[in-house]
Amino acid sequence: MVLPFLVSATDTRSSARRGTLQTRHGAIETPAFMCVGTRATVTGLEPADLRAVGAGILLANTYHLLLRPGPELFRRVGGIHRFMGWTGPVLTDSGGYQIFSLASDRTISEKGATFRSYVDRQRHLLSPERSIEIQTAIGSDIMMVLDVCPDARAEESTIRKAMERTHRWALRSLAARTNPEQALFAIVQGGVVPKLRQESAAFLTAQPFDGFALGGLAVGDTRPEREEITHSSAALLPAERPRYLMGVGTPPDLLHAIGAGIDLFDCVLPTHLAWQGTAFTSTGRVRVKRSACAVADKPLDESCACSTCRGFTRAYLHHLFKCGEPLGPRLLSLHNLHHYLALMAEARAAIDVGSYASFARAKLAAIDRHEHSERSLAGSPLDDLDDPS
Amino acid sequence: MVLPFLVSATDTRSSARRGTLQTRHGAIETPAFMCVGTRATVTGLEPADLRAVGAGILLANTYHLLLRPGPELFRRVGGIHRFMGWTGPVLTDSGGYQIFSLASDRTISEKGATFRSYVDRQRHLLSPERSIEIQTAIGSDIMMVLDVCPDARAEESTIRKAMERTHRWALRSLAARTNPEQALFAIVQGGVVPKLRQESAAFLTAQPFDGFALGGLAVGDTRPEREEITHSSAALLPAERPRYLMGVGTPPDLLHAIGAGIDLFDCVLPTHLAWQGTAFTSTGRVRVKRSACAVADKPLDESCACSTCRGFTRAYLHHLFKCGEPLGPRLLSLHNLHHYLALMAEARAAIDVGSYASFARAKLAAIDRHEHSERSLAGSPLDDLDDPS
Repeated sequence: MVLPFLVSATDTRSSARRGTLQTRHGAIETPAFMCVGTRATVTGLEPADLRAVGAGILLANTYHLLLRPGPELFRRVGGIHRFMGWTGPVLTDSGGYQIFSLASDRTISEKGATFRSYVDRQRHLLSPERSIEIQTAIGSDIMMVLDVCPDARAEESTIRKAMERTHRWALRSLAARTNPEQALFAIVQGGVVPKLRQESAAFLTAQPFDGFALGGLAVGDTRPEREEITHSSAALLPAERPRYLMGVGTPPDLLHAIGAGIDLFDCVLPTHLAWQGTAFTSTGRVRVKRSACAVADKPLDESCACSTCRGFTRAYLHHLFKCGEPLGPRLLSLHNLHHYLALMAEARAAIDVGSYASFARAKLAAIDRHEHSERSLAGSPLDDLDDPS
Repeated sequence: MVLPFLVSATDTRSSARRGTLQTRHGAIETPAFMCVGTRATVTGLEPADLRAVGAGILLANTYHLLLRPGPELFRRVGGIHRFMGWTGPVLTDSGGYQIFSLASDRTISEKGATFRSYVDRQRHLLSPERSIEIQTAIGSDIMMVLDVCPDARAEESTIRKAMERTHRWALRSLAARTNPEQALFAIVQGGVVPKLRQESAAFLTAQPFDGFALGGLAVGDTRPEREEITHSSAALLPAERPRYLMGVGTPPDLLHAIGAGIDLFDCVLPTHLAWQGTAFTSTGRVRVKRSACAVADKPLDESCACSTCRGFTRAYLHHLFKCGEPLGPRLLSLHNLHHYLALMAEARAAIDVGSYASFARAKLAAIDRHEHSERSLAGSPLDDLDDPS
């Protein structure tokens, strides 16, 4: 099968578009942000929490799930949805990125990558075929091809070799698919070199993939480079297939990329920063461990409708983080994911009424204003002190 | 005021009793188990979670809240209920136990205890008057007197001196109370020496306290000693006032103590063991990190109605603990508190229909049976291996 994807509206002043992607676990309204549940859990949150903050699709990771709990367990319990109690769509990344960024003692060849498990030090082979086999066992709705992920700052010849191997691996992944109900996305590589991106997009879009991702961004490239490549590469992808920008990014990154015609996103930032005590708000980032929050009898964000903002003050969140209490990161994770998912919902609504360009411009200007006022506040060295209160 | 306490049923074959304790934040149905929220949070859980598992009253701690966030913050925000978003009753322990078990560099005199803060190394004085002042600021519904907590294994002369100082401090606490809407409980001391317990109960029950606690148990005493003292001491306390057994204990401890006429309990075990990966179930304790759980496609407890048992398998919980994912302790905390609170609800129902003695006997026999079968299973050294799966 080819994953049904219906584009229902496009913006006249940008390339932004509204779509609906049908999976066997329900429809995904795009542009969509995927909450990152690497190890079959979005850290500290239950499926019911994710539904409450408006999550539509989760991302899990083949590399980590191969090592623990392993594909055999997924076969036994009937897949990740039953395993973790999430009834909506799931996309699995192939493990390519992790092999290049995390795996120790690894050897990469045309066949695939061998590496040692961080769980039991056993050797594993992750090849294109093996990645598809594991993703089939995991039972995700959308599988990703195994790709080669060089540093964006690498030599052009290195980027080219990685891209060409990524293409050969993509064909092997297609051939290895056994369950036609699980969609398969290819990954366009080519670093920040426009002609390589063109070549990669041309090669991959000639193949019957269900969607196309842009990989190899947010790995050493600058923001202008990333935006330029996102815009030019998105335009090379077929309008009738979903486009996924992998691992990106901040709210401004998302606003730019939606304007370039990207449909799907994932990023660890909202949960990762939550665990560090940083909240995204409509008036800039809030670091709850700072002393300014210690006596602040107001929510993180007055205009936020999430359960954290409705139920708890900055002073209480400050207290939880100062005590190292796990309720603090949980409440900030709920808030940050709500913040991201509400931004996506607003973006979809703006595209629906044909006003995305002005919506994005206003949002970006507001974020820019808050980031600047935040920086001027942060000019005082006292502001960064880790106050014991 | 004196806290209104109505005993509505008593068991004919034991001293168990059903009651309702009215506080300004609602009624407590007794026998009741208080969830421990030391630092104004039951670790990892929100007030909505606590309501969902059936919590009626929380316990918070004066010693920890004095150090962080401090009484001034509670005055500013209007008390612990608003601070943490919990609308039900709260009892605050006085800090006595923590001064004796946790405080570093401490000096105890007739005036009170001085010690260094673990937050900022500042010196603090915790006297009976200061403890009441802080508890008044915290705004708990039930305050506890500051008491002297010797080791249960100490010399009788040491136990006597501690008891006599506890009595003098109890009178000073009564005199220091400024808000008549906050109830005040005294703490009977006297170690495992029956005549000292009698003396302590006689002294304290002659004073207008709203309730009476048994302190100094589960601190080095054996289970038979604890049960004996609980039974004999409870009988010395006035029938028309609530009785609180501090810091105790396991489900069998609770079943015994309810039979002795105890109304209130608190214990860190359900949450503490949850963070270590141990669940209380109707068929004995389950250690979810053990390899037996790795492929177990069934809930922790087939007969449990909690959200963890309805939504997740042992295999998934095992995976979460093996990955160090904080959702694991959260799900086990929800389950263990539900287990404790459901046990209390069953006990209340049994007292209501006059069958507590047979109910407790059956429960204790079942627990004993499971603990023995568990021990025989644990006889295999393989069972304790920390399996990497």
